[in-house]
Amino acid sequence: MSNYTKTGKADGARTELHDKLGLTGAEISVNTLPAGASVPFVHAHKENEEIYFIISGKGKAVVDGEAIVLSEGDWIRIAPQGKRQFFASPDSPMSYICIQVKAGSLTEYTAADAIV
Amino acid sequence: MSNYTKTGKADGARTELHDKLGLTGAEISVNTLPAGASVPFVHAHKENEEIYFIISGKGKAVVDGEAIVLSEGDWIRIAPQGKRQFFASPDSPMSYICIQVKAGSLTEYTAADAIV
Repeated sequence: MSNYTKTGKADGARTELHDKLGLTGAEISVNTLPAGASVPFVHAHKENEEIYFIISGKGKAVVDGEAIVLSEGDWIRIAPQGKRQFFASPDSPMSYICIQVKAGSLTEYTAADAIV
Repeated sequence: MSNYTKTGKADGARTELHDKLGLTGAEISVNTLPAGASVPFVHAHKENEEIYFIISGKGKAVVDGEAIVLSEGDWIRIAPQGKRQFFASPDSPMSYICIQVKAGSLTEYTAADAIV
């Protein structure tokens, strides 16, 4: 069996990669909010840390009531209990990646986990 | 204590986010290879699954000796034991994200882990 899976550029409002790529340590979604739109609810997590990367455009996150301005290239990590909601700017869409991982699950990484 | 951490756009050849963002379930790096360059070694992992996203440019991955053409927007998941090396195209740089997570660590996700 091959040790890799690949998928092409995501399009549409939301693409989920867990099943598409056979992920076992993360769920990753690729999301686009049109200008002026937002995710229609506030949410938190039970166990999972989320890491967001802004691919293009601009907008904001609101975490526990605090607004955080976001633009292309920005990264934000949110603890499971953080109450979060994402908004595109009124004058720009925002495309972003959401990486969901189990908080505290990483043990070794990079040099300590590598076989070179 | 705040439930979020943020960092701005990465620059340079490689930026590692684990310590910068206080990640606990992943290590994430942002990497740029100049045109014609490659990561100078083949590597595999003990426990970690890696997921790569091509931010811009083009190039290829070689996994277990097989070449996989990559361009902007592509995603690739590599199992821990896959022997991998990344190359920018001879005529284009390639910028990519590498997400390192412990294989098999995700239990619940999205709706099953959410509190709305």
